[in-house]
Amino acid sequence: MASMEAPVGAWSRVAQALSHPIRVVVASFLAAILGGTALLMIPLAAASGESTDPVTALFTATSAVCVTGLVLVDTGTYWSGFGQGVILVLIQMGGLGIMTLASVLAVLIGRRIGVRASLLSGAEARRGSGVAMNAREVVVGVVRTSLLFEAAVALILIVRFLITYDEAPGRALYLGVFHAVSAFNNAGFGLYADSLERFALDPVISLTIAGAIICGGLGFPVLWELRRLWRRPREWSLHTRMTVAATAALLGVSTVVITFAEWGNDATMGTFSGPGKLLAGFFHAVNTRTAGFNSVPIGEMRSESLLASDVFMFIGAGSAGTAGGIKVTTFVLMGYIMWAELRGERQVIASRRTVPADVQRQALTVAFFGVTAIAVSTWLLLSTSAFSLDVVLFEVVSAFGTVGLSTGITASLPTHGQLLLTVLMFVGRLGPLTVGASLALRTRPRRFEFPEERTIVG
Amino acid sequence: MASMEAPVGAWSRVAQALSHPIRVVVASFLAAILGGTALLMIPLAAASGESTDPVTALFTATSAVCVTGLVLVDTGTYWSGFGQGVILVLIQMGGLGIMTLASVLAVLIGRRIGVRASLLSGAEARRGSGVAMNAREVVVGVVRTSLLFEAAVALILIVRFLITYDEAPGRALYLGVFHAVSAFNNAGFGLYADSLERFALDPVISLTIAGAIICGGLGFPVLWELRRLWRRPREWSLHTRMTVAATAALLGVSTVVITFAEWGNDATMGTFSGPGKLLAGFFHAVNTRTAGFNSVPIGEMRSESLLASDVFMFIGAGSAGTAGGIKVTTFVLMGYIMWAELRGERQVIASRRTVPADVQRQALTVAFFGVTAIAVSTWLLLSTSAFSLDVVLFEVVSAFGTVGLSTGITASLPTHGQLLLTVLMFVGRLGPLTVGASLALRTRPRRFEFPEERTIVG
Ligand SMILES: [K+]
Ligand SMILES: [K+]
Repeated sequence: MASMEAPVGAWSRVAQALSHPIRVVVASFLAAILGGTALLMIPLAAASGESTDPVTALFTATSAVCVTGLVLVDTGTYWSGFGQGVILVLIQMGGLGIMTLASVLAVLIGRRIGVRASLLSGAEARRGSGVAMNAREVVVGVVRTSLLFEAAVALILIVRFLITYDEAPGRALYLGVFHAVSAFNNAGFGLYADSLERFALDPVISLTIAGAIICGGLGFPVLWELRRLWRRPREWSLHTRMTVAATAALLGVSTVVITFAEWGNDATMGTFSGPGKLLAGFFHAVNTRTAGFNSVPIGEMRSESLLASDVFMFIGAGSAGTAGGIKVTTFVLMGYIMWAELRGERQVIASRRTVPADVQRQALTVAFFGVTAIAVSTWLLLSTSAFSLDVVLFEVVSAFGTVGLSTGITASLPTHGQLLLTVLMFVGRLGPLTVGASLALRTRPRRFEFPEERTIVG
Repeated sequence: MASMEAPVGAWSRVAQALSHPIRVVVASFLAAILGGTALLMIPLAAASGESTDPVTALFTATSAVCVTGLVLVDTGTYWSGFGQGVILVLIQMGGLGIMTLASVLAVLIGRRIGVRASLLSGAEARRGSGVAMNAREVVVGVVRTSLLFEAAVALILIVRFLITYDEAPGRALYLGVFHAVSAFNNAGFGLYADSLERFALDPVISLTIAGAIICGGLGFPVLWELRRLWRRPREWSLHTRMTVAATAALLGVSTVVITFAEWGNDATMGTFSGPGKLLAGFFHAVNTRTAGFNSVPIGEMRSESLLASDVFMFIGAGSAGTAGGIKVTTFVLMGYIMWAELRGERQVIASRRTVPADVQRQALTVAFFGVTAIAVSTWLLLSTSAFSLDVVLFEVVSAFGTVGLSTGITASLPTHGQLLLTVLMFVGRLGPLTVGASLALRTRPRRFEFPEERTIVG
């Protein structure tokens, strides 16, 4: 803390602090949000040159740090270049922060519990050969991987903006970098008032951004393992197999469901060609995995599309990545647990591996924590506003899952409703991670045990 | 099966069959439903003297056997006296059936796992003194207790109908018995087209019916233990303590929430006096615990009341009683599990007792099974009808929780929507019970074990 002369000592201290990690995580996110709020309130940050009100600044800073993407004011026109820069930095800090912390936690959890098949296969492989991956290496790896992906995505976007859309070089560079960072970090902030609706039928922009979102959403443990074991899927860890398979399956299902439901809706994709509909459906499906861009107007979608999106937004994408939601592994584990329960199996077997009892409990707790937060918030927002259940539920799930999609009611909500969403973005960003980590890092042994007693269930 | 000369042998054979109980339960419920459907299709069953269409008959029979109370046609005017009698018998069969099976299962589970603190405290106490309560005694006890409660409630109602409402003796008897059976069994079927709206401000009828609903909803294990240990709450089992405390707390919270939300709504209780509002709020709160009568028009309630009701309907009341939903013990256990998880406790301690790991998993599985069934059904119904999310969700939760409250859309749904609700009533009635029982009664030991492997959660 005091000096940088002993980096290894400093990192081990950081690692030590992380053994009570929840306070550190919460404190650093709060600090980033409050700093961002202050910066966004400077008159220079708004295009008008006037100071922004505290609620709007707090909401925007929280949305950026929690890589959500819900906004009260249009990012591209309300904020000045400086304001947009602040938002971009907050997104990058929030994205790197959550990824780093989650990855370090994963390493610590792996060590603490002493499992052989570590969560971080990279670390595992090196530990197997006598070299442990420490917290510092994890952080450096996360930063390097992020910048690499963002640079590649930005490059494609810049070229496209330059050539196809005749943007000036400086503008093309700015648009490319902003959307690349926003996409890889699953932030959903854009510089266009219509998000990406104008590019609904541009496969280069749609698919590049979708690719960045999917990669960021897989999470670093998976990205690193895929790089190392790309050609040897048999050696993938359970975590990687689950994440990849569930991501593919969920993307397939959600593309079909959304495209099918909106096929004849002229207000969204009804006027598109067949392939255009599929592209727009796929893009929406990818973005419900908590990225938050939209290429068709969300407010015009049918109720059943909104509800289906609610489910996909709630699930989110991979752990220790940039996505929100309860995470695909949590969702898949719940499926395995229910299946075992229905068959009357004592153990939960996933792909020839036994899932430990505490991991099962973690998964179910994370999921129920989410359902509870969403139910309570939806009720509060319904009670204090005049909007109907479908749009309110969508807004709440979007905030909790740090998705950022909206039917357009965000700015029309009463102030306390906007503050509720602010809290929910924060809870949604940190809740599943900390709930998931607290069990694994618990430090409260009981001195004595109470006798067991059963209750009837169901 | 073949002869009745050896009742003990017959009962032990029943108990043996129940060791694979799910098939027996499902088959007997299906048989009752199909028999009821056939009877209701007889021209004699309808007041018009014409044969009823199969969908309406199936829906009504399922609703009665599953003690739900959702209807496509008005019970009091559409059906003849014979039809109403069939419905009453189906309710009584369904109510007794589910209570008996659940109680027998509880005994079997207690034996199989060999817990000391049995689920059935009555059985436990007698086993402690060397006398085991067998399946037959459980069945006899359930029938006797049911008839006792129903007779007491019917008596009060009959007197009230006779004296205050000047009904003829025969009619008062019929109204009293029908509503007493319907209330104690949490069935929600009534003989008035407006359910019990005309009695909204009659405390005798409202509170008598509310009392019957609450007692039926506590479940037999709790009722029996309360009778035995009424004055010694310190000796109550964990199951009874949890059920009684959670029932009181949930009733209090739901009364406050509903009364508060509807206080100024002139279409429901806004025109009532203060005590009248409280009475109507309490009555609705009691009926969301899966009874299904209403004294204010549900279709006029505010969105936030509907959503709050959804939550209370989903939770339901006690296990091994007449209520539906995931049950209060399941809900309370989830709270304890989440609390332990957030504190990083390895064990879940509820009121100085350790909750076994498999009971935790059961609770979380039952809850998630419910959430999944509701989400999928809501999506299907939204996709195939023109109603909005709030009324569709309410209808689906009401069917799944076998509540029977409705905003009034049941009869207007397309036929496949009505069939979906039929399936959902069946699944909601038997699902939580069988999911909860399957783990406890599992019979699939693994020959070999797979190695453990962790995944990241959240
Ligand atoms: K987002
Ligand atoms: K009912």
